[in-house]
Amino acid sequence: MEKSLREIAELVGGEIEGDPDTIISGVSGIKEAQEGEITFVANSRYTSLIETTGASAIIVTPETRRNGQNTPFLRAENPYLAFLGVVDLWVPQEHTTSKGVHPTAVVGKNVTMGAECTLGAYSVVGDDVTLGDRVTVYPHVVIGDRVKIGSGTVLYPHVTVRDRVSIGNRVIIHSGTRIGCDGFGFAPIKGQHHKVPQVGTVVIEDDVEVGANVTIDRATFQKTLIKKGTKIDNLVQIAHNVEVGENSIIVAQVGISGSTKIGDGVTLAGQAGIVGHIEIGDGAIVAARAGVTKNVEPYTCVSGLPATLHEKWQRMVAVQRRLPEINKQIRRFEKRLAALEQVLDAEPKND
Amino acid sequence: MEKSLREIAELVGGEIEGDPDTIISGVSGIKEAQEGEITFVANSRYTSLIETTGASAIIVTPETRRNGQNTPFLRAENPYLAFLGVVDLWVPQEHTTSKGVHPTAVVGKNVTMGAECTLGAYSVVGDDVTLGDRVTVYPHVVIGDRVKIGSGTVLYPHVTVRDRVSIGNRVIIHSGTRIGCDGFGFAPIKGQHHKVPQVGTVVIEDDVEVGANVTIDRATFQKTLIKKGTKIDNLVQIAHNVEVGENSIIVAQVGISGSTKIGDGVTLAGQAGIVGHIEIGDGAIVAARAGVTKNVEPYTCVSGLPATLHEKWQRMVAVQRRLPEINKQIRRFEKRLAALEQVLDAEPKND
Amino acid sequence: MEKSLREIAELVGGEIEGDPDTIISGVSGIKEAQEGEITFVANSRYTSLIETTGASAIIVTPETRRNGQNTPFLRAENPYLAFLGVVDLWVPQEHTTSKGVHPTAVVGKNVTMGAECTLGAYSVVGDDVTLGDRVTVYPHVVIGDRVKIGSGTVLYPHVTVRDRVSIGNRVIIHSGTRIGCDGFGFAPIKGQHHKVPQVGTVVIEDDVEVGANVTIDRATFQKTLIKKGTKIDNLVQIAHNVEVGENSIIVAQVGISGSTKIGDGVTLAGQAGIVGHIEIGDGAIVAARAGVTKNVEPYTCVSGLPATLHEKWQRMVAVQRRLPEINKQIRRFEKRLAALEQVLDAEPKND
Repeated sequence: MEKSLREIAELVGGEIEGDPDTIISGVSGIKEAQEGEITFVANSRYTSLIETTGASAIIVTPETRRNGQNTPFLRAENPYLAFLGVVDLWVPQEHTTSKGVHPTAVVGKNVTMGAECTLGAYSVVGDDVTLGDRVTVYPHVVIGDRVKIGSGTVLYPHVTVRDRVSIGNRVIIHSGTRIGCDGFGFAPIKGQHHKVPQVGTVVIEDDVEVGANVTIDRATFQKTLIKKGTKIDNLVQIAHNVEVGENSIIVAQVGISGSTKIGDGVTLAGQAGIVGHIEIGDGAIVAARAGVTKNVEPYTCVSGLPATLHEKWQRMVAVQRRLPEINKQIRRFEKRLAALEQVLDAEPKND
Repeated sequence: MEKSLREIAELVGGEIEGDPDTIISGVSGIKEAQEGEITFVANSRYTSLIETTGASAIIVTPETRRNGQNTPFLRAENPYLAFLGVVDLWVPQEHTTSKGVHPTAVVGKNVTMGAECTLGAYSVVGDDVTLGDRVTVYPHVVIGDRVKIGSGTVLYPHVTVRDRVSIGNRVIIHSGTRIGCDGFGFAPIKGQHHKVPQVGTVVIEDDVEVGANVTIDRATFQKTLIKKGTKIDNLVQIAHNVEVGENSIIVAQVGISGSTKIGDGVTLAGQAGIVGHIEIGDGAIVAARAGVTKNVEPYTCVSGLPATLHEKWQRMVAVQRRLPEINKQIRRFEKRLAALEQVLDAEPKND
Repeated sequence: MEKSLREIAELVGGEIEGDPDTIISGVSGIKEAQEGEITFVANSRYTSLIETTGASAIIVTPETRRNGQNTPFLRAENPYLAFLGVVDLWVPQEHTTSKGVHPTAVVGKNVTMGAECTLGAYSVVGDDVTLGDRVTVYPHVVIGDRVKIGSGTVLYPHVTVRDRVSIGNRVIIHSGTRIGCDGFGFAPIKGQHHKVPQVGTVVIEDDVEVGANVTIDRATFQKTLIKKGTKIDNLVQIAHNVEVGENSIIVAQVGISGSTKIGDGVTLAGQAGIVGHIEIGDGAIVAARAGVTKNVEPYTCVSGLPATLHEKWQRMVAVQRRLPEINKQIRRFEKRLAALEQVLDAEPKND
């Protein structure tokens, strides 16, 4: 598909600087972009790449300065947002195969389906399930009994949604993710572990995206809750009774233990681990691989194991790197002190 | 469903203190419980919550003291155990849809099935498989050839059990878990990695529970072994030839490398990692995120990377937090020593 | 099956030392081997086990010395390679059930299949897919549209291959692995996270093996790339636009963030984490649980968090273990310095 820069500007907004008849045939990142492609620079750190990109047009901020080359610009208030609009024009069409209910889909009793739903090959839907409009269930998804799924939600192949789970509108769940399996709860009685039935559920609000092979366990009682707009990456573990606030980001392989509460706008970076029964305040950032063992204040950043305020942790790490030298220095101190004490015949006071 | 406190006491035991005609319509945790619900306090740490809970009855120990309110008590020797009995009364009935062998189940040759087995929609069972009584195979489970599964075992949707794996009685395996995939074994020959065929298997004994999206690899030779009563959380990796003892607890995202032997009654907390070819003694505790690089003695607790005895690690961490101040202190020592040496004209001895 | 040592030598090469008529009925590791089994010692660290093994024959190097026992030897230039040949003789035959296209396989439009392909029960293949010769698709695999898969490749049960992914020849992908799900890309606009469409793909070259429940995300643009001969263990996360070189080893639960480039012959040990947008040089080793935050030079080894050259990290760890004593030592220095200063009435210089 080809579009002129003028047509693109009409679709996504912004002011053209350069030839509006420039023909664009695709989109790409600034480093990879080649002739015929449009790209963008939203962050001033990447402004220098404007000089070297192979792109035929660049979406930039109103303030971005030229650096001697004359690739056409599309100046937009929010280049990232404009770029998303442009990307949408070239997104490949997916799963054209199976619109509607595939003849092999197994649908239980008393299932309510909105308009234009897709149930893929071999999908299984339990009894008393409610699906909103335009729900897309890919092949091999299994949905338990009494599940509710809102409009526009997409479940990719091999997703499991267990009984009584509730999923909002425009939610995306990637392949192999398990929603509503039993929480890990056992009562230790005489050295054996007796299963505590997990009778709660999971509620996922609107506009959440959950990556592949994630596990979100059902609550012991009540519910495990993921609030609206939160995005979860692959292979994340969310234990029973966890509550994650709105618009938070949980990067791959993070683990959140039972009953912990994550605030709004929080970032949990890759492979971080959070113990149970604590709170991570709104806007907090937990650095990659941090192990959080106690509450984190809102709008602070923590790192390391046990997690510490990031600035303090950085100072600790700087000294840690010097530990071998410090060790030598201490041995020299010992000798120098002993020499001084000998000279003075002073009594050293040991504790 | 409603029951009087008297009826509950008759079912699970214990002595009533308060109105035996109190009507109970559900169960919940002490913090979340509302009017009409019964809850419990087994741990004295939570005794103070007795004053604030919204529950209509509380299961407590014989020794628990009242604190000014008069919610009916049910005094039981083991409140946790009594509570489990109560929870069972209100557990929602699951998968009412598909008792028996679903017409879409694909069953191989020479399959032996006990009484009252369930094979869900689109489940696939290989040749020469033996299932005990009351085995529940949820939709979309795939079982390979020559697999043995004991009585009362439950395989949730999307579980894979590969060829020749053996699973005991009353085992629960949650969605997306893979039992018996090839161990990660390669022979490095001239810079390339040649696959070592993994011809062993996996044996899971009675009363084991395995969480969702777990991987338990088959042995190179012989068997990977999970002994009876052990409970494994989500996203855990158990490599080839690992042996896990009885009644151990393995929390989410733990990884155990090849040929390592875990004792009985061990706790591996979340995201811990254990190198290959070592032993973790009976009753040992590996703290969350610990990286264990050598044997752990029975009934000890280790933390950190590389894992160290927990008490020692705590002392190390306490000093680590002071490292920036220690660093300054050392710089001051240097100056003070130099000043003293200048005064004395003493020869400092450098190493 | 039984074979004489002479027959085995004829099949895999090597010189017999001892009775060539020794009957071998199986293979095993040196520690587990019993009478009738053949084993091997490739690494001189295990030479002492030759004296204690229960095996009836041992494959050894030309240089391996005897230690007083007389188990027959098969001397081979590369004992590991010879042993692999022997193991192949006793590998159990798998999935005898379903050669050819199972009647329940759902195959899309315009699918090209080479000779002797197997499509298992309930497998789903999208439109415009190309399969080479002898591709084995186990039950419950889902393959999207426009996917290309080379000859001799095996996809185990419950694998998902999303649209437009390309997989080479002789690739093995274990159960529950997800290839080509969306990368984790969002544009933060006014506190909300807007999805960046992931329009790239994944390319997996020849002779790659991928473990169970792995996630390899599609690129934002262009491709996520796994080059030939690389082996990936279970539960690994590979983010969008990552490039992994040839013949690298990625152990279980490793996470690689977006756009990072891993060289050839690299080893990433278990649970390591690599931040985005960096390079790990050829032949580098990242130790287990290391957290890599910046480029790693070729043929170096890094450990710890943040990852440091392994030798330096070992020295740091050694001092860290002594921190409680160092702390006491510093307190004694303080007292001794004060005592000296008092004697001399010297002015300490504070910074």
